[in-house]
Amino acid sequence: MKLNEGVEWALHTCLNLGWIEESGEAAPTARLAAFYDLPPAYLNKQLQALVRAGILSSTPGPRGGFRLARQLEDITVLDVVVAIEGRAPAFACNQILHQGPGADPRTDYREACVIAQTMSRAELAWRQVLASETLADIRGRVLEVSPRAPDATREWFRNVRR
Amino acid sequence: MKLNEGVEWALHTCLNLGWIEESGEAAPTARLAAFYDLPPAYLNKQLQALVRAGILSSTPGPRGGFRLARQLEDITVLDVVVAIEGRAPAFACNQILHQGPGADPRTDYREACVIAQTMSRAELAWRQVLASETLADIRGRVLEVSPRAPDATREWFRNVRR
Repeated sequence: MKLNEGVEWALHTCLNLGWIEESGEAAPTARLAAFYDLPPAYLNKQLQALVRAGILSSTPGPRGGFRLARQLEDITVLDVVVAIEGRAPAFACNQILHQGPGADPRTDYREACVIAQTMSRAELAWRQVLASETLADIRGRVLEVSPRAPDATREWFRNVRR
Repeated sequence: MKLNEGVEWALHTCLNLGWIEESGEAAPTARLAAFYDLPPAYLNKQLQALVRAGILSSTPGPRGGFRLARQLEDITVLDVVVAIEGRAPAFACNQILHQGPGADPRTDYREACVIAQTMSRAELAWRQVLASETLADIRGRVLEVSPRAPDATREWFRNVRR
C-alpha cells in the first residue's frame, strides 16, 4: 500500500499557490515544478487532476498557469488526496467469500463480511483525519513553525519570473 | 493506494485455520487455496509471510501444512496487514522540502513538515482501528451473523481430505 507521490507534490503546490496568489498572477507548471525540482510533465498531470476536482483553475497562454479555484479554507487534505488517488478504498474487498462453500450469490460481502467491515472502519478513520484538516489549517501551522515561508516563496517566484 | 489482495486472503485463511484447528491437523496450501479458488502458489507466498511474522507455523511433509502459531486472541488485524504489506507507511514522505529554496539540509522533514504530520496522524488512526481488533473479535462477530460457519468450514476440510 503506497500513496502516489503526486499527493505530496499536490499538497505542497496548493500551499505554495496560497502564498503566491496575492500577486494576482497564475503560476505555470514549469515554475511550480522547478520550486522542488520535480519532473514538470508528471507534476502537470497531478495539477490537471486538481483542476478536474475543482481545486485549481488553469488559464492557457503565455501569462497563463494555475491558481487556486477555492479558498484554502474550503480545501481539505482529503479533497487533494481523492483528487490524485481517486475514491477507491485502499482495501479493495474482492468478496472471496463468494468463491467459498455455502456462499450466497445474492449477498454483497463488501457489506456483509465482518473482515470487510473492519477494514472499512479503519479506512473511514483515516479519511476522517484527512477531512478534518483544511489547507488553511496547514497554512496556519506552517506560519507557526516557518514564519518566513510565505515571503520566501513569493520572493522565489518573483525572481524566477521572466 | 491499494492494499495487496493477499491481505484479504490472509485474514480469511487465519479465521479458517481457527475453525479447523480443533481437528489437530495442519492444513496444506492446496486445500486452503481451493476453499476460495485462489492461486495456490501466490497464496503460499502470503502464508510464508505469516509464518515469518510468527502468526502461522508450518510443518513440512505429506501430512504437513499450516497451523496458527498463536491464539486468535493474540493476533490483531494489524498484525496480519503488516505481515503482508510491511511496515512502511502508505504516505511515503519524500521530503520534497529538501529540494525547495531555503531548505535546511539537517532537518528531517518527515517529522518537521506539517503536511507529513497530518498524513502520519491519519495513518495512525487507520492503524489504531486495525490494532484494536483481534481475529478473536472477528470470529465472535462471524459467529453472530453466520453461526454455521465453523461447522461448514470443518466439514468442507474434512471432505476434501485424502
